[in-house]
Amino acid sequence: MAKQPELDDFRVPYFDGGKKNSKFSLDAFDPAAKPFSTGSKDSDRVRLSAIGAELETLQECLHAQQKRRVLLVLQGMDTSGKDGTIRAVFHDVDPLGLRIVPFKAPTPVEVAHDFLWRVHAQAPAAGELTIFNRSHYEDLLVPTVLGELDAQAFEQRCRHIREFEEMLADSCTTIIKCMLHISKDEQRTRLQARIDDPTKHWKFDLADLDARKQWDAYQSAYRDALAATSTEYAPWYVIPADSKTHRNVMVAELLLRALEALKLEYPPPKESLKGIKVE
Amino acid sequence: MAKQPELDDFRVPYFDGGKKNSKFSLDAFDPAAKPFSTGSKDSDRVRLSAIGAELETLQECLHAQQKRRVLLVLQGMDTSGKDGTIRAVFHDVDPLGLRIVPFKAPTPVEVAHDFLWRVHAQAPAAGELTIFNRSHYEDLLVPTVLGELDAQAFEQRCRHIREFEEMLADSCTTIIKCMLHISKDEQRTRLQARIDDPTKHWKFDLADLDARKQWDAYQSAYRDALAATSTEYAPWYVIPADSKTHRNVMVAELLLRALEALKLEYPPPKESLKGIKVE
Repeated sequence: MAKQPELDDFRVPYFDGGKKNSKFSLDAFDPAAKPFSTGSKDSDRVRLSAIGAELETLQECLHAQQKRRVLLVLQGMDTSGKDGTIRAVFHDVDPLGLRIVPFKAPTPVEVAHDFLWRVHAQAPAAGELTIFNRSHYEDLLVPTVLGELDAQAFEQRCRHIREFEEMLADSCTTIIKCMLHISKDEQRTRLQARIDDPTKHWKFDLADLDARKQWDAYQSAYRDALAATSTEYAPWYVIPADSKTHRNVMVAELLLRALEALKLEYPPPKESLKGIKVE
Repeated sequence: MAKQPELDDFRVPYFDGGKKNSKFSLDAFDPAAKPFSTGSKDSDRVRLSAIGAELETLQECLHAQQKRRVLLVLQGMDTSGKDGTIRAVFHDVDPLGLRIVPFKAPTPVEVAHDFLWRVHAQAPAAGELTIFNRSHYEDLLVPTVLGELDAQAFEQRCRHIREFEEMLADSCTTIIKCMLHISKDEQRTRLQARIDDPTKHWKFDLADLDARKQWDAYQSAYRDALAATSTEYAPWYVIPADSKTHRNVMVAELLLRALEALKLEYPPPKESLKGIKVE
């Protein structure tokens, strides 16, 4: 009998202090795999809806406690589905309890600061569930591919990221990082669909095709970045994402498990309110 | 035949330059009225869901254009339903296109700045739909009730607010301001329900009852604030809010009408993408 897949099978091995994490290769993960799919799109949607309801309750509890902070980092190539994941997974979660932070190309003011400056400013507060739509990892990946970051500077940024994330974790922050892993073929299909639909042109820029031309360089940079920054306090997961419904279910399952592990409880009733009659 | 209610009947008359806007009294609005209700809670929910779908489309268009900015300001006494309105009205709107900004009691750093400093920092960007859950109006209402703002300082702040909002409006921002209007009796019922349910105690603080003791002073401050800051570019609406479903439908209708008035259109297709084949 085939082994049931475990979420941990898709976790990038923790950084072990070596310069490279030689146990890890992105090629070992099939972007078209659907290990957490229920088998049909319809029942995936039913499952997602059930998880959504659980997430809503847990998120309210997180908010009520005002202690823990939760940070979900979403990374992936263009069209890998970062926006779509947020839409699908958080459809039923109270918008008051979510904060979604999109990181775009840095502004001149942001560039004038250290690379973690704009990111730290957006770190989750107590009781908050924050989603980074792209993140500080862009500042590792993009300059690497553009040849602006040599190996030593890359290692240094990775170390600073590990230390920054450890500080967040030590400050009651649960961090989950997902790389939405699509195939080059699937990206072609999705990009072409955007080009062929004039009503979608506003989402698209010719420059988007430049990153595609650097596909292998990006995959390699992702591999090195994930290997150097997957830690017990801020693990990376590779999410097979050619199937959108599978991608959504898997990210939702990961988040659900992480929130359940916090054993969140509502604060106890306040004695001071007992028996009070409002006049 | 009774006159059909118009949203404009609930608009606070525009500030006319006089010290008081004598045409306006909150007493003229019955908090228990349901002028925009369809008649049953169930069909109100159906109507809300239909508006939600329209809002979702309009909001995507707003985002695609990246020109207009939209700001919805929600104010009201404790339990008037600011959170509930946001949850209900924006349930179907893409969370990626929303930014919800809660304003709490100002921090020492915020107090150290002028009263519009923290508010301006949260103003909507192009393509954004931003909701202020409480707002700069707290800095008008609370100090007035506490006796920390005399009539002259109150008028001065109102003028600064008008000028600030006019500047936002001149910068492509559509501003809609809603006062969720509940009765003192309805507030008693809602506060008592929170006290009687120990699982809701985390939402409640004994100090919340202090504002209730100042009910009349708050109503009077609201009247004066609304009268002095309802303008063509940033109108105030009084939302009868004892009925939650009515409140939700009315706020949704207001927002829908405001977005429709913008005559949003998707950007035209890009000629540069015509015929491109992705490799």
